[in-house]
Amino acid sequence: MLERFKVPKEDQVRIPADSLKRTVTAFFERMGETTEFAQTAANTLVTSDLRGVESHGVSNMMAKYIEYYQEGSIKARPDWRIVRETPGTANIDADSGLVIILGQKAMQIAVDKAKEVGVGVVTVFNSGHSGAIGHHAMLAAEQDMVGMVMTAAGLRTLPTFGAEPRLGTNPIAIAAPAGREAPFLYDAATSSVAMNKMWLAKRVGADVVPGWIAREDGSPVMEPAPVPEDDNAFNLLPLGSHKGYGLGLMAEVMAALLAGALPSMINHDRENKHFFAAYNIAAFTEVDQFKENMDEMLRTLRETKPAPGHDRVLYPGLLEHEDMQDRTANGIPLHKDVVAWFDDMAAEFGVEGLERS
Amino acid sequence: MLERFKVPKEDQVRIPADSLKRTVTAFFERMGETTEFAQTAANTLVTSDLRGVESHGVSNMMAKYIEYYQEGSIKARPDWRIVRETPGTANIDADSGLVIILGQKAMQIAVDKAKEVGVGVVTVFNSGHSGAIGHHAMLAAEQDMVGMVMTAAGLRTLPTFGAEPRLGTNPIAIAAPAGREAPFLYDAATSSVAMNKMWLAKRVGADVVPGWIAREDGSPVMEPAPVPEDDNAFNLLPLGSHKGYGLGLMAEVMAALLAGALPSMINHDRENKHFFAAYNIAAFTEVDQFKENMDEMLRTLRETKPAPGHDRVLYPGLLEHEDMQDRTANGIPLHKDVVAWFDDMAAEFGVEGLERS
Repeated sequence: MLERFKVPKEDQVRIPADSLKRTVTAFFERMGETTEFAQTAANTLVTSDLRGVESHGVSNMMAKYIEYYQEGSIKARPDWRIVRETPGTANIDADSGLVIILGQKAMQIAVDKAKEVGVGVVTVFNSGHSGAIGHHAMLAAEQDMVGMVMTAAGLRTLPTFGAEPRLGTNPIAIAAPAGREAPFLYDAATSSVAMNKMWLAKRVGADVVPGWIAREDGSPVMEPAPVPEDDNAFNLLPLGSHKGYGLGLMAEVMAALLAGALPSMINHDRENKHFFAAYNIAAFTEVDQFKENMDEMLRTLRETKPAPGHDRVLYPGLLEHEDMQDRTANGIPLHKDVVAWFDDMAAEFGVEGLERS
Repeated sequence: MLERFKVPKEDQVRIPADSLKRTVTAFFERMGETTEFAQTAANTLVTSDLRGVESHGVSNMMAKYIEYYQEGSIKARPDWRIVRETPGTANIDADSGLVIILGQKAMQIAVDKAKEVGVGVVTVFNSGHSGAIGHHAMLAAEQDMVGMVMTAAGLRTLPTFGAEPRLGTNPIAIAAPAGREAPFLYDAATSSVAMNKMWLAKRVGADVVPGWIAREDGSPVMEPAPVPEDDNAFNLLPLGSHKGYGLGLMAEVMAALLAGALPSMINHDRENKHFFAAYNIAAFTEVDQFKENMDEMLRTLRETKPAPGHDRVLYPGLLEHEDMQDRTANGIPLHKDVVAWFDDMAAEFGVEGLERS
């Protein structure tokens, strides 16, 4: 993630990942989830923090999830079920369950189907937030498959030339295993910026970049400006105009319409819709050769001569891998206000609080 | 396609689609293809022109294909074969065949598999140019499936922060059927601009847009400028920096590495690699309901209030549908120089030349 979104050094408190996972698990148990589901939820969230994807980690999301459980817009221990199934596909009604949990189930069903017929695709509707979808894509990569996830959720992004929001930030994630190199892991919104990043920018006092947002009449903000206080005073622009618009619609088609659900532009509630796919590498080629080719490609990218003004060339997943090594060893840097909130909630719930690294 | 790329009115000659197809079919027969293959090739190319996708129509591509056949970099009547197969997947060695032809075979195999197991994925390596990949995606949409195609080819796009090209323009296409509305059809490069569009811009005298290309040292050209005469004096920038870079790498992974092939950054020849997927709507939900939902979504997009300075909101595939209606009725507007070239070649090959509308 860009440096502008990181917690300033002077406000950081480092928390060991295991301690954070224990406390987050306890919070989800207090919300009514089983221990297994609560652990899955904590793993999804804390892994995002380990990867440096703070926009989808505990700081932005934990308080929101508690609010959603308490207001009843998401349900603990959901009665999720497969409503249609073929050897390579399944469509799941999530019964308002959080996809930070059910995403693991959905991707594993896709992986199991891909073991049988080469490819597995699972759509999920009537569901809650997914967390960082790259995390679910990685589940496939860890089992020698290419994982792909798309989400259609929310209504904050303008269509090209439009003044009314018609799309969510609709991210696309893809993960593929390598041999010695850090795995390939791409996960990004099809809007110019993710809404979670806007909240994070507001918290750390960062400006919006020209081309990120539009005013209420649809005219783009083309100069650096503070993040508007009121979330309803702006909309997001699609990435690169018609291209991000088309890719955002791809996510609507694959995640919402294919699942038999209505897109947010027609039925706007908190329901999220998801597309999970696992492509079994062994169904196409030799897995060892694939990983060697991945290594050679990723090394070639890393060793590319940088353009003037840049130190090095990255590839998607490399910074996240480096962050994970640092944070596993040294703890996860949370904002001191977030740590204080965790301390308060742990006391309120009567569960174990956070250790300090 | 943007107006800047269209042939200026005063240089247009309108040619009936049927006449253009007959002449193009005859050219491909002269290159050694069977009548069936030649007709498929002509259909792929001329349908692009009918859709207004001139960058991938006869004007840009016909002369190149003839050159490729004559120099032997693509092969007529290729001995293409499936090298690995499961119920949901196949990997095809194209034996240097053109994918404007074999793309139809590959997508039909994907569709047939999706009829059996809900989803079908076919990779193609060792192959020639695909034409507009949206055309192949539409083949699935016409059979009540969502079609997705990605291509990895060429070496013209810089990675984010990089000074050396590492990716092709690597397009992604998706098509989905609607009921009464024009179908959803997205097809765009993951670079800021497609190379074919650069050639077209050069021909019609259009400037490059800021952010499209970089100089040889990797520094971006951030002001309007003529298209450089020498194709080697510039590289393309990825769409929206790290997002287009990541999506371009997705195409490398899905089309090249999954097929067991090396990416262009390691083995740079004229070989193109392709990913074809068909997702059977009936495996997930009711087809009629899906089409009704598509209609409602596409109509909602069309009827969105425009931003200041814009007349209307489009969706991907709408302009193409309107162009197809116009061009089917009134002929395809080719540049007079292109028509002259066709006349010369038809005389040289001793085949039927172009009629005028």
